[in-house]
Amino acid sequence: MSETSAVAQARAVPALLAALRRQPLDRTPIWIMRQAGRYLPEYRALRERHGFLDLARTPELAMHVTLMPLERMPLDGAILFADIALPLAGLGVGFRLEEGIGPVIDPPMRTAAQIDALRPFEAERDVPYVLEAIRITRAALASRGGPPVPLLGFAGAPFTLASYLVEGQGRRDFRHLHALMAADGGLWDRLMDRLAAMTAAYLRAQAAAGAQALQLFDSWAGALSAPDYDRYVKPWSRRVFEDLRDLGVPLIHFGTGTHGFLESFASAGGDVVGVDWHLPLDEAWRRIGHDRAIQGNLDPADLFAPWEWVRERARDVLRRAGGRPGHVFNLGHGILPGTPLETVQRLVDFVHESAPV
Amino acid sequence: MSETSAVAQARAVPALLAALRRQPLDRTPIWIMRQAGRYLPEYRALRERHGFLDLARTPELAMHVTLMPLERMPLDGAILFADIALPLAGLGVGFRLEEGIGPVIDPPMRTAAQIDALRPFEAERDVPYVLEAIRITRAALASRGGPPVPLLGFAGAPFTLASYLVEGQGRRDFRHLHALMAADGGLWDRLMDRLAAMTAAYLRAQAAAGAQALQLFDSWAGALSAPDYDRYVKPWSRRVFEDLRDLGVPLIHFGTGTHGFLESFASAGGDVVGVDWHLPLDEAWRRIGHDRAIQGNLDPADLFAPWEWVRERARDVLRRAGGRPGHVFNLGHGILPGTPLETVQRLVDFVHESAPV
Repeated sequence: MSETSAVAQARAVPALLAALRRQPLDRTPIWIMRQAGRYLPEYRALRERHGFLDLARTPELAMHVTLMPLERMPLDGAILFADIALPLAGLGVGFRLEEGIGPVIDPPMRTAAQIDALRPFEAERDVPYVLEAIRITRAALASRGGPPVPLLGFAGAPFTLASYLVEGQGRRDFRHLHALMAADGGLWDRLMDRLAAMTAAYLRAQAAAGAQALQLFDSWAGALSAPDYDRYVKPWSRRVFEDLRDLGVPLIHFGTGTHGFLESFASAGGDVVGVDWHLPLDEAWRRIGHDRAIQGNLDPADLFAPWEWVRERARDVLRRAGGRPGHVFNLGHGILPGTPLETVQRLVDFVHESAPV
Repeated sequence: MSETSAVAQARAVPALLAALRRQPLDRTPIWIMRQAGRYLPEYRALRERHGFLDLARTPELAMHVTLMPLERMPLDGAILFADIALPLAGLGVGFRLEEGIGPVIDPPMRTAAQIDALRPFEAERDVPYVLEAIRITRAALASRGGPPVPLLGFAGAPFTLASYLVEGQGRRDFRHLHALMAADGGLWDRLMDRLAAMTAAYLRAQAAAGAQALQLFDSWAGALSAPDYDRYVKPWSRRVFEDLRDLGVPLIHFGTGTHGFLESFASAGGDVVGVDWHLPLDEAWRRIGHDRAIQGNLDPADLFAPWEWVRERARDVLRRAGGRPGHVFNLGHGILPGTPLETVQRLVDFVHESAPV
């Protein structure tokens, strides 16, 4: 192959996938967690007619929402519109989504009988709509003009799922979780075994359906101390990553509040570590190790400030990335409802126009 | 003075105050944040007849609640029953307390006109009931039998107060705060100047009324990155501590989620640094420096687990303190509603019965 065609071939790889593999690029790719969501007026209009689960369980609508932000700005990736609670139904767990609260599990899972009654997860039986949404969205992305945009899939990490299951809803004090960790009979380990198996199978099915990168969300891990993370969480996150290693799909390991045990969090696995804003990006990357890619880390709340402030904050993130291959620009957590759309658009342009420094 | 009378005099100093001053003791003192509150059945019964603000603004009732937990267990300190929002009324800020939410500021404070309209704070005019509650509680403590129990006062730190004022209620994403930090005209600094002056005056008045130690609560500081903490928060916390230095009263500087910038947080001031459970106590103390006392750091959620688990967790905290003078046992954050009372009682006994190791 001539050098020219090698370059041409390299250019045909979407920038996001190249960055996730730490390949050098002449600009930094950007996507935004929850980019297909509540800050978009067209999404809010759609939600007036459809419930969240209605959207997520109807492949054509999920695709429509997934593609929405791409019509507004040249993002480098599309992330499937879904919720981490969706596969729980397959286990036989009843849940609903409540506005402003998120998934609510009723009744919460706190006994051996409940844990042992969990059904084995089968993706094609339990979440066919997610897989179909991935297939048709992937096809729609392929038929779009312009540079190729890869599709990301995702799942909740075993701990974050467990926190919803056991507490009944997302909360930060985890009074029931600790009691379950302390319970006799290895109850915690049995629950985490089930959730790790389900999560690995779910992500594997997403990749088979066409997802080109996969993100594991451990949104609640930061509520724990470092020793508790090591004992009660890491073994199962690691099992998920090890199970998926043969896929050859880039794996992103994201958590918030992980700055107390970032080395340990990173060691659980993932080609890419997603970090929040608590640490400056250069410090986070040093702690993760430069042999891994990094994703982050603008504070979502910054996007409510005037553009000049946002630009300086974004410039600081890029400066701290230092032009090193393997940086994917993102927020440090999901974009907030009410974020000014114009600021998001300017951010995407600014990141694209800035040469890595 | 003979050696015997020196020892006797040393013993007359309450254990908590001795520990706050890093004096050697033969046991570790313990108090519990929010110990006068919602896990006590007698408190819940009282709340059926009185609103929270009603209790806090009636000195006899505030005293009654402050003393409640001492009837249940031999705690080493009494902390005044109050809320960090109380002095805001003196600034001319309207607020209410909502069940399960906390203080709600209506309207939130986001403009220069609002900030400049804040009235100067005068403790005797604005919070006479707090000062009276301190006076009568101190007298009641003095007339109790048994070892002397000191009375702690407290206030919200300027940043935590600002987060309530600007966001309108306690939340973790701080979208309006960042916009205010970014605003022209030094708006943020002006607001923080006012709040630092108010907080220092409020704590000074509490000491004059009889509070024997003072805790500054910066409950929300951990939501910020380290650079933001340094720029937008620390100068004003430091100003409060410097202002109070001449009082000679032990000052406790408490925050949660401060493990990303603990050295910086500690350097803002306080004789004692209160830490949450994110870091093991020995690591936190090393980062704070052994020339400071430390308070903490059992996870409040641990108290929902069986006693054997709680005991091992408490033993671990004591072991990590290593018998070094200057450890005050506490939770890493306020005790949670619904915490089993018996577990709290056993914890207090266990800490008292354990020789520092």
